[in-house]
This record gives sequence, C-alpha cells and structure tokens, in this order.
Amino acid sequence: NSWDYGPLGVLLKNNIKRVWWDMFVKSRRDVVGLESALIMNPKVWSASGHMDNFADPLVECKKCHVRFRADEINVNEPCGKCGEAGQFTESASFNMMFKTYVGPKEEAAAVAYLRPETAQGMFVDWPAIVTTTRQKIPFGVAQMGKVFRNEITPGNFIFRTREFEQMEIEYFVGEDGWQNHFDEWLEWMRKWIDACGIDKRKIHEVEIPEDERAHYSQRTVDIEFDWPFGQKELYGIAYRGDYDLQLHAKNSGQSFTYKDPETGEEYVPHVIEPTFGVERTLLAVLLSAYQEEEVKGEKRVVLKLKPELAPYQAAVLPLSKKEELMKLAEPIADELSQSFSCEYDVTQSIGKRYRRQDEIGTPFCVTVDFDSLEDKAVTIRERDSMEQERVLIKDVGKVLEVKLIV
Amino acid sequence: NSWDYGPLGVLLKNNIKRVWWDMFVKSRRDVVGLESALIMNPKVWSASGHMDNFADPLVECKKCHVRFRADEINVNEPCGKCGEAGQFTESASFNMMFKTYVGPKEEAAAVAYLRPETAQGMFVDWPAIVTTTRQKIPFGVAQMGKVFRNEITPGNFIFRTREFEQMEIEYFVGEDGWQNHFDEWLEWMRKWIDACGIDKRKIHEVEIPEDERAHYSQRTVDIEFDWPFGQKELYGIAYRGDYDLQLHAKNSGQSFTYKDPETGEEYVPHVIEPTFGVERTLLAVLLSAYQEEEVKGEKRVVLKLKPELAPYQAAVLPLSKKEELMKLAEPIADELSQSFSCEYDVTQSIGKRYRRQDEIGTPFCVTVDFDSLEDKAVTIRERDSMEQERVLIKDVGKVLEVKLIV
Repeated sequence: NSWDYGPLGVLLKNNIKRVWWDMFVKSRRDVVGLESALIMNPKVWSASGHMDNFADPLVECKKCHVRFRADEINVNEPCGKCGEAGQFTESASFNMMFKTYVGPKEEAAAVAYLRPETAQGMFVDWPAIVTTTRQKIPFGVAQMGKVFRNEITPGNFIFRTREFEQMEIEYFVGEDGWQNHFDEWLEWMRKWIDACGIDKRKIHEVEIPEDERAHYSQRTVDIEFDWPFGQKELYGIAYRGDYDLQLHAKNSGQSFTYKDPETGEEYVPHVIEPTFGVERTLLAVLLSAYQEEEVKGEKRVVLKLKPELAPYQAAVLPLSKKEELMKLAEPIADELSQSFSCEYDVTQSIGKRYRRQDEIGTPFCVTVDFDSLEDKAVTIRERDSMEQERVLIKDVGKVLEVKLIV
Repeated sequence: NSWDYGPLGVLLKNNIKRVWWDMFVKSRRDVVGLESALIMNPKVWSASGHMDNFADPLVECKKCHVRFRADEINVNEPCGKCGEAGQFTESASFNMMFKTYVGPKEEAAAVAYLRPETAQGMFVDWPAIVTTTRQKIPFGVAQMGKVFRNEITPGNFIFRTREFEQMEIEYFVGEDGWQNHFDEWLEWMRKWIDACGIDKRKIHEVEIPEDERAHYSQRTVDIEFDWPFGQKELYGIAYRGDYDLQLHAKNSGQSFTYKDPETGEEYVPHVIEPTFGVERTLLAVLLSAYQEEEVKGEKRVVLKLKPELAPYQAAVLPLSKKEELMKLAEPIADELSQSFSCEYDVTQSIGKRYRRQDEIGTPFCVTVDFDSLEDKAVTIRERDSMEQERVLIKDVGKVLEVKLIV
C-alpha cells in the first residue's frame, strides 16, 4: 500500500501542489503558508481528541486472529480469511495514528505519533501566526504535506493509502457571517476544480445532514467524484465553529483569543476548513484528462491535461538521430528547459514519439526536420488538435510562452 | 526537537527546494525526478544494511537509566544527569530508524520504519526508471523529501533534527571515468552554493581519508561550513561504486544490470551521490545573508538574500492608511502577486516598514505616496543600496521583472 511516483508522476504531483499554492497562498493577501512538523508533541493529539476518537472499530477472528473493520463485515458470516464461523471477538476501538518512539527508549514517555492531518499544526501555531503576520480576521493559514493513517482497509489504487499528502486551509472568521465565508470557499473549490481540469460532470456536492456531521459543525459539504469504483469523496469543506481553538486554549492554558484592532472586541475565532488530497486530485485529474480517440483508423490515447499541470510543457524531437539534426535540436531543448519543463526524445519514429507525448499529456511537440537546416524553422504540433505550425527557431520560446499562457 | 516553519520560513524553504529542482532536474536532460514513499518495505532496510549498521553506540547510567551516546561522554566521569560515578552499562548499539507498526497489530510481521534517507528509494526504483525513461548512462535520479533519524543528541537549532528534508541525487555511471563525473558534480555543488548565496569564505571542502570512508567508497568529500557552533558538515558527495545496486540485486533477486545500447556491454552501474540538506541550506543561507549596518546613526538589520530565494520579491507599501492611497496600492499588490510573491503592508510608519522588509530580505519595496495620486507613479526602493527610483504604476510589473532577473 505504498506508491512511488516516477519521473512523470512527480512532475504532475509537484505541478498540482504549485498551482494550488499559487491560487490559495501566493495570489491571496488573506492567506499565509505554514509547514509544521510531521511528528508533533503527543499532547496536541490528546488535546485535539485524536487519541480518544481517531479510531476504527475492529473485530478479530478467534481462530486465525486476523482483524477486520467491524463496519465492513457481517459478524454472523464465516471469517473471510480462515472460513471459521461465529468466531469473532467483540468490536474494539483501534486508533489509526501511527505510533513511534522518540529517543533511545521504547517507553510510554517516549511515545509519539505521525500526524494524521495537517490541520492541527495550523491550530496550535495560530497564536504565533497572528502575532507575527499582522493579519486581520478574516484570514487563513494554508499547509501542504504528508500525513499518515493506519487504515485497516486501504485500496483503490492511490485513493486510500496509509501515507498521503494533504493541502488544507484553516480560514479564521468571526462567528457572524460564517455562512458567507463558507459559500465563498465552496466557490473557490469549484474554481480550483476548474483550474485543474477535473471533469465537472463527475462532481457532486453533497450536503452532510445534521445527524452525520460532527457535533461542532453546523455545515459540512463533501465534494464527491465519480471514480471507476463508485461515487466517493474527493474534497471536503467544513464549518468547525471555534471547536478546535477552544480545545487547544483549554488544554494548553494559552490564549487563542483574537482582539479586533478596530472594535476592540475579543473572541476565539471560528474556522472554515477546505481540505484537498493531493493524490485524489492527481487521480481525478488523470481520469478526467484520459481520452481515447480514433485517428486515421488507429487508436490514439491522449491525456488532455491543463498545460500548467502537464509533466512536460514541450518536447523537442529531432526527426532522426542524424548528427546535424541533433546539433540543431539540442540547443532548442536546452533553451526551452530554462523556462519550461521540457523533454528531449530521439528514440523511435516521429509518429511513435508523438503518440508517446500524447499519452504523457505534453501540450506541444517541437519537431526539428531536414528542412530546419535550410529554413531555420521547426514545426510546433499541438496535442489536442494535432495541428502543426512552422515557426522560426529564434521565436520558438516566445511562441510557446504565448500559447502556454493563453 | 521539532521545528515549524512559519509564513516566511515556508516561503524561503520552498524557494530553496524550487531553485534546487530547477538547477538539477528541470534544466538538465540527464536527471529525472522521483518521489518514493516515506514508509518503505522493511526488506529495503534489511538489504541496504540499515537494519544492522544504522546505529549509534549507547551507554546507560545504571542508577538513573538515562542513556548517552558512548562517543560523546567519558564513561569514567560521573553521570551528567544524576551525578553518580562509575555506573554506566557496556556500550550497546541503538538503531536510529524510527519504528512503527503497519496494520491493526503490533507484531513483528507488521514492523515498518520511517526512511532515514531518500537514497534507497532511488536505488530500488532504478530498474523501473531505466526501463520507462529511455535514459542512457550516465544519468541521474533526484529526490527531495522528508527523512527521519532518531538522533540521541539532536541540537544546534535546525542543524541536527530528528525530522528533516533531504535533496539527493544518485548519478549512475560506468566504472571507467567515475573520477571525472565526481569532479563535475563537485563543481555543480560549488555552483549551487553560489546560486543560493552561501558565503564561500565559510566553505571548506574536506577530502575524507581512506580509513574514515565507507569501505565501498573510493572518494568522499564533505563540504563543511563555519557555523556559529563550529566547522561542521553542510553537504557531502560520495562515490559509492556499485555497492548499493549490487546489494539490492542480491537481496531482491531482480536484475540491476544495465545494457549499453551501443556497445552491448552489460554491467551494474556505479553511483556518484551528492547530498544536500534543506534545513542546513536554509541555515547557511540565513547566516550568509544576515548583515548589520549603520544607517544615519541607527543599526539596520538586513537579510541580503538572493532575490529568487527571498520570501517576498516585493512589498507594496501605501504611505498611510488614507483610503485614496489604499485604493491605489491594493490593485498594484494584486497585479504583482500574479507574478511574484508579494507582501502588502499598511501598518506603522514607512521607515519601520522599510526596516521590516529589510529584515525579511525583500529585494524591492514599492511605495505609494500622495504624489502617486497626481503623477500615477510610485517609488521603487532597492534593499541593499536603499536607492529609490520613480516608476510609472503601469510599468511597475515590467520594471521589477527586469530587475529580478538581472
């Protein structure tokens, strides 16, 4: 249940994270970033309630001792592993935080946990952030990073894994008017879905009814996606009230009170929390971009990725391995690599290389052919339309820049 | 021993990682990226030797049971904790990998470790990478990411922490000519040191003598820095021969052999490994950039950061909180935020705000004053020279772009 991301996967993943950060931190004056530690003080998890409540109910087969999530099996049926019937223990709570020991002894005082979410770092650091940034409410804190959940039933490719990356925002507001902020953030999430090319026809906004919401939340919306394995959660947004900051104030003895510099009013801020998973975004982006087309009687597979998310923005392809073509093509690739993520590929026929770049999702191929030696020009081929255009070599960088921004 | 990075710290850290990636992955045709899991299969650590050898020698005080690194204390002296003399146990080996349990049972079969280095992911994924990328030797794999070491004696601020980030390259070469590749990579490390503005006068390249090198390494160079707490390691580069790939080939039964497509020669590649720590880079960058100057009889603190590393490239400062100035200044900040990381600050006197941006290391301040209402121009102030220049509002973006690139 661990997934590695290869040379193309890491580029796509990093692009998703960069575009998210640009949209929600860099281009916004009311959101600041944070990177808190993965191993936090265990008192944080005790204060947040994770020690007591971040748990799945488990049963164990008395014969083979394999454990199952109580809500995923029927305890009156035989064990799915050994086949023995009627042998399950009572359901017991299993905490999903990964435990480890800090320092040279495996003892209770040394226990620590890998964070199961990035949110708590933003809550406990909130007093320091509000002091040092001179931000005024409403404002948000954003964080991207690894989290760990000891899932009993991981699966569906990268949909549910024990190690994954979150992109979260805690947006701090006054209690009055939280509804408007909630609506604005929901609208921003729709803009994000648009910006990364996720198929809107597969998106469902599900209002979570009161009896299924956490007791402190007056509104929660799950944004679900039509995965190949069913309609399930992609993102979520919750109004959490002042629940989190109050808990940390109480348990730490520190002040989590905000003083409005204009009205002088003092209060513990309320929180709107939009949450995004990096890997689920990546999977939804891939599923939305993947297309099979028929071109001249042959199947063409093409990833119609947004250009800013594509692993490569351009590929430079000399028509053949002839030295004079390589000599012309290599400096083009080197120059483009200063501005874009650029591939240089000389292997196999040009048709196969176009198809390869289509599958990778590269929006533009730059082909250097024998005419290029004479006319000092190259062909730029666009991925989706497959249209080709002749462009002077000296203009290629600028032409691509314009095409990629528009 | 956990450090969080606040709104400015995370920007500086992310910039360091981005510039590194641009230099060593994006702009190089012979290096590809990877993101492997933090929790890998434990067999990897068994194969790599980490299970047996990634350990510190520990002694324990028989009275108070506190443990110390055997090489850091004198066992004939009294315990540094309780003061009792002659009470230490024999030295025993303590593995520095953080241990955890995957799945619902704490049992031997479920033990897993947090990776103590990013390198092994690049070794075990090497066969898949060479198959899918059509890269030819020499070529490299690069990875950035969190690693964890259960240090007995962490300290010196962010110099030695249990959780930190590495940026590593494994460069795969034939055995012949490894010396040249080593020299080239050492030269690239010098270029990197230059690119991020680390003070070269504080850098020492230390050739590690044979008796201190790992047995498989024929050359290792430590790049040390003059920290406030002494001359200690900043980076390292090692020639590791074919040691790692041979180990994984032997333990996995998989082929780690490379077949040269031109000569047909088959061999297990040798490795040059340049290693960079993100936090040590950040600390060396801060120490190199920090300056105290006297300006008009007052002390000025300024972080002379490279503009591409600075948390903000520009700060927009309306001279006062008058509404007409804010109305003029806000759209400038919004426009600049599309291209740069841009701060907008309206609090306190303009002099104090200049000093604040100097301390943050912001290369340019854009001041909107009452003349701006008439001449539609603003003042651009450069951080190091403190020189000011009047620029039309409509040209600010372009002028900064030119200044920031040059």
